[in-house]
Amino acid sequence: MGRVITLTTDFGMADAFVGTMKGVILSVNPEASIVDLCHSIEPQNVAQAAFVLSTAYRYFPDNTIHLVVVDPGVGSVRRAIILRTPTFIFVAPDNGVLSYILDDASPSATIGEGLQYSELGAGLKAVTISNPRFWLAPLSATFHGRDIFAPVAGYLSLAIPIHEFGEEVSRVSAFPLPRPEVVADGVLLGHVLHVDRFGNLITDVKAEGLPADRVRIKVGGRSIEGISSCYEEGGELLALMGSSGNLEVAAKNKNAAQMLGAKVGDEITITWT
Amino acid sequence: MGRVITLTTDFGMADAFVGTMKGVILSVNPEASIVDLCHSIEPQNVAQAAFVLSTAYRYFPDNTIHLVVVDPGVGSVRRAIILRTPTFIFVAPDNGVLSYILDDASPSATIGEGLQYSELGAGLKAVTISNPRFWLAPLSATFHGRDIFAPVAGYLSLAIPIHEFGEEVSRVSAFPLPRPEVVADGVLLGHVLHVDRFGNLITDVKAEGLPADRVRIKVGGRSIEGISSCYEEGGELLALMGSSGNLEVAAKNKNAAQMLGAKVGDEITITWT
Amino acid sequence: MGRVITLTTDFGMADAFVGTMKGVILSVNPEASIVDLCHSIEPQNVAQAAFVLSTAYRYFPDNTIHLVVVDPGVGSVRRAIILRTPTFIFVAPDNGVLSYILDDASPSATIGEGLQYSELGAGLKAVTISNPRFWLAPLSATFHGRDIFAPVAGYLSLAIPIHEFGEEVSRVSAFPLPRPEVVADGVLLGHVLHVDRFGNLITDVKAEGLPADRVRIKVGGRSIEGISSCYEEGGELLALMGSSGNLEVAAKNKNAAQMLGAKVGDEITITWT
Repeated sequence: MGRVITLTTDFGMADAFVGTMKGVILSVNPEASIVDLCHSIEPQNVAQAAFVLSTAYRYFPDNTIHLVVVDPGVGSVRRAIILRTPTFIFVAPDNGVLSYILDDASPSATIGEGLQYSELGAGLKAVTISNPRFWLAPLSATFHGRDIFAPVAGYLSLAIPIHEFGEEVSRVSAFPLPRPEVVADGVLLGHVLHVDRFGNLITDVKAEGLPADRVRIKVGGRSIEGISSCYEEGGELLALMGSSGNLEVAAKNKNAAQMLGAKVGDEITITWT
Repeated sequence: MGRVITLTTDFGMADAFVGTMKGVILSVNPEASIVDLCHSIEPQNVAQAAFVLSTAYRYFPDNTIHLVVVDPGVGSVRRAIILRTPTFIFVAPDNGVLSYILDDASPSATIGEGLQYSELGAGLKAVTISNPRFWLAPLSATFHGRDIFAPVAGYLSLAIPIHEFGEEVSRVSAFPLPRPEVVADGVLLGHVLHVDRFGNLITDVKAEGLPADRVRIKVGGRSIEGISSCYEEGGELLALMGSSGNLEVAAKNKNAAQMLGAKVGDEITITWT
Repeated sequence: MGRVITLTTDFGMADAFVGTMKGVILSVNPEASIVDLCHSIEPQNVAQAAFVLSTAYRYFPDNTIHLVVVDPGVGSVRRAIILRTPTFIFVAPDNGVLSYILDDASPSATIGEGLQYSELGAGLKAVTISNPRFWLAPLSATFHGRDIFAPVAGYLSLAIPIHEFGEEVSRVSAFPLPRPEVVADGVLLGHVLHVDRFGNLITDVKAEGLPADRVRIKVGGRSIEGISSCYEEGGELLALMGSSGNLEVAAKNKNAAQMLGAKVGDEITITWT
């Protein structure tokens, strides 16, 4: 069995876009093992793709190639890049979608406002994808997932070194990651990063280190006392430490987002009691 | 090619939950062949997962590992189990989601009310999943699909014997399967078990043995004469023997559920004419 | 790694239909590499399936088996067929779903009205699927995807010659492909063939050969000047050459179909300026 390639896109499942990319990959490397990470990213929502990727990429075998195609700038001058970390290879448009990966590799390099360049920390290497030898011809203006990203991922899975694909770059685009603020003594202001399929609110507050029985959490006009250990414990509405280590607000066998009318970007306040 | 592992969950496709589980499985066994059975189970709907699994599991190669993660009790004291039948291995929370499997193996062991324990018939063996050697660490409280079920399925696909994963148990949770009742002489009262993607109503009435031209079927205030042999034969609304052997109500090139305003649990009456 | 089999169906992802077909295929050929092309075809929409298949099939390795199950006539007298082209094998009900494939192989053989038979051009060969040796038994009346198409695709992937599956036929069903009309000197009337996940309108107008800066496009009461080279160039509403070579109407980071209230079948007018 060949190397694993994961796919994260905003292509949805209503067309054959994703299947077409798989056809291209298998044409290059019939042994590639392709896994869908997520194709339901909201169209052009780079921040959502970045977050979803960040929750999943670590759980794959070493040398997995993670391909992300959420690419509002397709066909324009935006760069496409390959980023190699000590464990994985990422292939994506250079639009900030790898911000969490860069932050995991060298924390706080990306704090600031708006899209900017992040200096690559030790152990990271990046190239622009500029060598057309690995692309399909003719090249379309609208589907680089098929014409550039898929064949490049296929050739990477054949262990072609990344410097064959283009020139090395020392900086990669990143956006500042959402982080909670200390707004007063013993008061933390966090944000909803993601609403999952169950309606759970995943926040940017790291649950590690929060005292489980000495915090009050306010969200959507409701108040939650303490942090539960699982969905079955705690009241109708509860907070717990989610599977990515982030504080999560959930409703027992219900949809917390619907119950609270909550959405991505909403604020959550944590007070020490 | 390694062994087949199927996945049935209520995780949907909007997050990377399913992809993450695949990453964990491939990290354990890069040769595993992973097949999605269904990820659109309604959140926490154990009965629906049990039914969907029952329609599909037989069609896989011998020794396939069927993994089901519909798990409202995740992180609490509910047990997780491995069930071995003469042909397949099932991995699931012990919450009744294997009720049809147990019934297929030893019919009517599960008749009764509410969730109960079913004695395992001949040829069946079950263990609780209690040996943390096969789990990811640290263990989250909310995503045992990733931390317990996926790696356990991966190790099972490497042919590790089930008794390595925990203690043998002689009973497994099951709920009473919905069955039609004889309510009068020549009158059968059945129920809608499932509404499929086409709006067809799958019922708990076994079509085998029903006299095709001598029954009248009542559902949603409408009446159907006789059982058709395919969707193209019969009137606008028709009944036929579905692909799982259950009586099915369909509308020719239309959505019967919408036409009738019908839903899971609705009654259907069969009268001999 | 064995041969690639692609699946295109109207089965959706809410049931285990697709997973069941994969189980049957892997039971026949554990080495088959199965790729989902699309399962979101509107129920019974043969024309949509035909178009989606046409955009994707070329991008797969030689000898890929493309299986299409959009089959309103399942269980009736409609034929099922295997079509071999110089590069691929197609398996489908004989209901016109291979119209674009036939047209690509021998253009304009299929012009006319309604469903008709297309004479097979040079290099094409077709058989009816009539030899029950390759089917599951018992045969259901409603799920030939599982009982006939899946095992036949599995055996084809084992390189069993197509004449083993049934009698050769010289004609295959096809419908006339939508094509733009010249309605006046320098005026072309086209049609929306497909609305993709992003709300882009894919039309039947071939963009090749259209003068980029000398056309005006009218659709949904709006007017577009010229053809842009990518989504980022041009105004809020723009036209460009899509990834299948068809003229496409898009909205920058928005949903053009929603903005215009446009749908499949709508007219688009191209005027030379």
